Amino acid sequence: MNRPSIEHCVFLDKQDPLRELKDLFQLPPGVIYLDGNSLGALPKATKERITNAIENEWGIELIRSWNSSGWFDLPRNVGDKIARLIGAKAGEVVATDTTSVNLYKVLSCAMSIAESDTPNKKKVISELSNFPTDLYIAQSLCKERGFELVLVDVEEQDLSSHLTDDVAVLMLTHVNYRTGAMHHMQKVSELAKSKGVLTIWDLAHSAGAVPVDVHQVNADFAVGCGYKYLNGGPGAPAFVWVNPCHVGRFWQPLAGWWGHDKPFSFSPDYTPSADITRFQCGTQPILSLIGLDCGIDIYLKAQEFGGMDAIRSKSVALTELFIHLVQERLSPYGISVVSPLNADERGSQVSLVAKERAYEIVQALIQRGVIGDYRAGAGVNQPDILRFGFTPLYLSFVDVWQAIEQFDLVMKNEEWKDSRFVHKSSVT
Amino acid sequence: MNRPSIEHCVFLDKQDPLRELKDLFQLPPGVIYLDGNSLGALPKATKERITNAIENEWGIELIRSWNSSGWFDLPRNVGDKIARLIGAKAGEVVATDTTSVNLYKVLSCAMSIAESDTPNKKKVISELSNFPTDLYIAQSLCKERGFELVLVDVEEQDLSSHLTDDVAVLMLTHVNYRTGAMHHMQKVSELAKSKGVLTIWDLAHSAGAVPVDVHQVNADFAVGCGYKYLNGGPGAPAFVWVNPCHVGRFWQPLAGWWGHDKPFSFSPDYTPSADITRFQCGTQPILSLIGLDCGIDIYLKAQEFGGMDAIRSKSVALTELFIHLVQERLSPYGISVVSPLNADERGSQVSLVAKERAYEIVQALIQRGVIGDYRAGAGVNQPDILRFGFTPLYLSFVDVWQAIEQFDLVMKNEEWKDSRFVHKSSVT
Repeated sequence: MNRPSIEHCVFLDKQDPLRELKDLFQLPPGVIYLDGNSLGALPKATKERITNAIENEWGIELIRSWNSSGWFDLPRNVGDKIARLIGAKAGEVVATDTTSVNLYKVLSCAMSIAESDTPNKKKVISELSNFPTDLYIAQSLCKERGFELVLVDVEEQDLSSHLTDDVAVLMLTHVNYRTGAMHHMQKVSELAKSKGVLTIWDLAHSAGAVPVDVHQVNADFAVGCGYKYLNGGPGAPAFVWVNPCHVGRFWQPLAGWWGHDKPFSFSPDYTPSADITRFQCGTQPILSLIGLDCGIDIYLKAQEFGGMDAIRSKSVALTELFIHLVQERLSPYGISVVSPLNADERGSQVSLVAKERAYEIVQALIQRGVIGDYRAGAGVNQPDILRFGFTPLYLSFVDVWQAIEQFDLVMKNEEWKDSRFVHKSSVT
Repeated sequence: MNRPSIEHCVFLDKQDPLRELKDLFQLPPGVIYLDGNSLGALPKATKERITNAIENEWGIELIRSWNSSGWFDLPRNVGDKIARLIGAKAGEVVATDTTSVNLYKVLSCAMSIAESDTPNKKKVISELSNFPTDLYIAQSLCKERGFELVLVDVEEQDLSSHLTDDVAVLMLTHVNYRTGAMHHMQKVSELAKSKGVLTIWDLAHSAGAVPVDVHQVNADFAVGCGYKYLNGGPGAPAFVWVNPCHVGRFWQPLAGWWGHDKPFSFSPDYTPSADITRFQCGTQPILSLIGLDCGIDIYLKAQEFGGMDAIRSKSVALTELFIHLVQERLSPYGISVVSPLNADERGSQVSLVAKERAYEIVQALIQRGVIGDYRAGAGVNQPDILRFGFTPLYLSFVDVWQAIEQFDLVMKNEEWKDSRFVHKSSVT
């Protein structure tokens, strides 16, 4: 990288094929938003779409909108759009429920497959550093179904040794929520497949952020989040993909009426639909689902400007710039990068550690309009971190430059010492 | 009842203590909405609240709104408001997920209690006429957990004979979705309790429509719907109540991070919260949840005008009037009432049968601005029905009169013969 300068950042922004997309978002003035990995920003189209849904679809059409406004088909139609971001085909994804609930559905199905095909396999492998809800759902199902949950520290080179003959399922989050470290989905999936292990991928920090191709890697199950990089709004529904070779084999346990083959036949007997819609359960929150639809539409628009390849290229360039500037300007203050420095091993997020007072630094940055977030650590191996997400759809290179300028001032002026920012857990 | 007349209806509306509440709803002109039992009407406050949540809470405050706008506490805070409608206490209800998902949670917990306390009890009793999703969830869990689902035709006088020593759980919907028939919750709960049977009540067609007191009847579990009488908007989150004596005993299986005792400790081990919040799973759809909050607020407003007692009185009066007018004016056309004629055995809904072409009659009524709905039957015991829900918050006695006037015209003119209304299943 050339020695970065504000002029170079201006130049990069002018060259950016995705630069027009920023205009599709309503970003607050004076804010550089580096937390799209937690809650994506607001698309401009969302307010009008949801207002219309409230006033006309609900307020005037009322009950008729389940058909006339396409509400009932929305989980499938939004799912078809998400499918394009993860290498799935139309009809293979539904947008529904939450990531946690969808994890329960797919892990349960993976267990059913294992019980049927490989009854000697009774272990589920995941990572200690996986997002907690993934581990909680796995704990619950393992307890219920008599499987053993084994948490390993997955270094790809020794994952093979963990995938012993008794392992049924490997359940990983593609991009780590704390560090942004990214698994090599192809290699890991191939390894698992070669060992007869089913894979479940949590794409919460991947979908819309990095290229994913569930068919190319021959994954078995995937779930993901609608309100991070997909910009669906707070708590927007999640999504679920199931490899078509598994879809029809077992009931998913949350066998609600939306998963029925003929939900409006009101039959007392459950007959699951033949396709991915059996992974639906109950009636979906339509207003939040419309929000998700608006978020995804921006990715469809991005197709005109190079799509996921362009998004990934810009994401790498943004994070490289940020890392470079952190190392150059913030290392004197004891700030360092914990995310992988090799872009191939990193999602669209950079996490930092500070010598002390990570929480207070994040608060002081927010005070200056640079929004990232803080995640408490645990013990020596997991320090407190400062997290920064980079959403190429609405972030510019100049934004990154300005964020570092503000960060530099926070550290130089020791603004994190401001008593307003003191973290309760730091003073007790 | 006096012989009803339009003048008498005008008089009743003038006397109605709840008459001002209609102004809190945005009802389309020219429509008499008798489908609030399926999707409640739009409160006027909803658009502004959700627009503000989109523009300011999400658009400007962004990630900070999880705390600063109270998003994270919304399931509990909305739950506290719902609690007041069902006789529960603050802190005993959460608004979350869907009715189907919540049924799964509570039935699973009921099974865990039975397995622990009464391992010889391996039956779950429900009704063939229960809403299908309740039966599907029960089928799925019974299969998974080794229980037997027994569907009975509950006539209260012989329910006792079904509650044999091997019955663990009685799972009923308080008000039947097809017929509007209402179980005597107190008697049924007492009977179940006397037999050592746990009760799960689906209040989808009760909460906000009829008085419910889960503590008075000493129920064990209850779930309900946010988008029917509670006017939360399409697919708004559902709710779940658990008797405090059971809450802390077992994990509910959907052990996601929102049910953790300290969700933001990001501990890899699941420790469920001590209270009803353990019945949460993943991140909730905030925009839809705000819609539910607006719907519930109207019930809090109704407290000023007599609350649930006034709502029930008006509901009974509206359905009595409707039934009387159907019998007087529509019976010559072969239209008859299938809902219980005794108001004590009826929810806030009246269902009718027609000699023929029920679907087409409903369509012709909608064409005239009277919105009810149609539910296909099955066999001799379950005819096709025309369903009409009566929401006392926004329906007047004159509305009922006018609905019958239109119904009379549809039948007199045989408008249901219009080829636009032909039901596909009627012509194949």
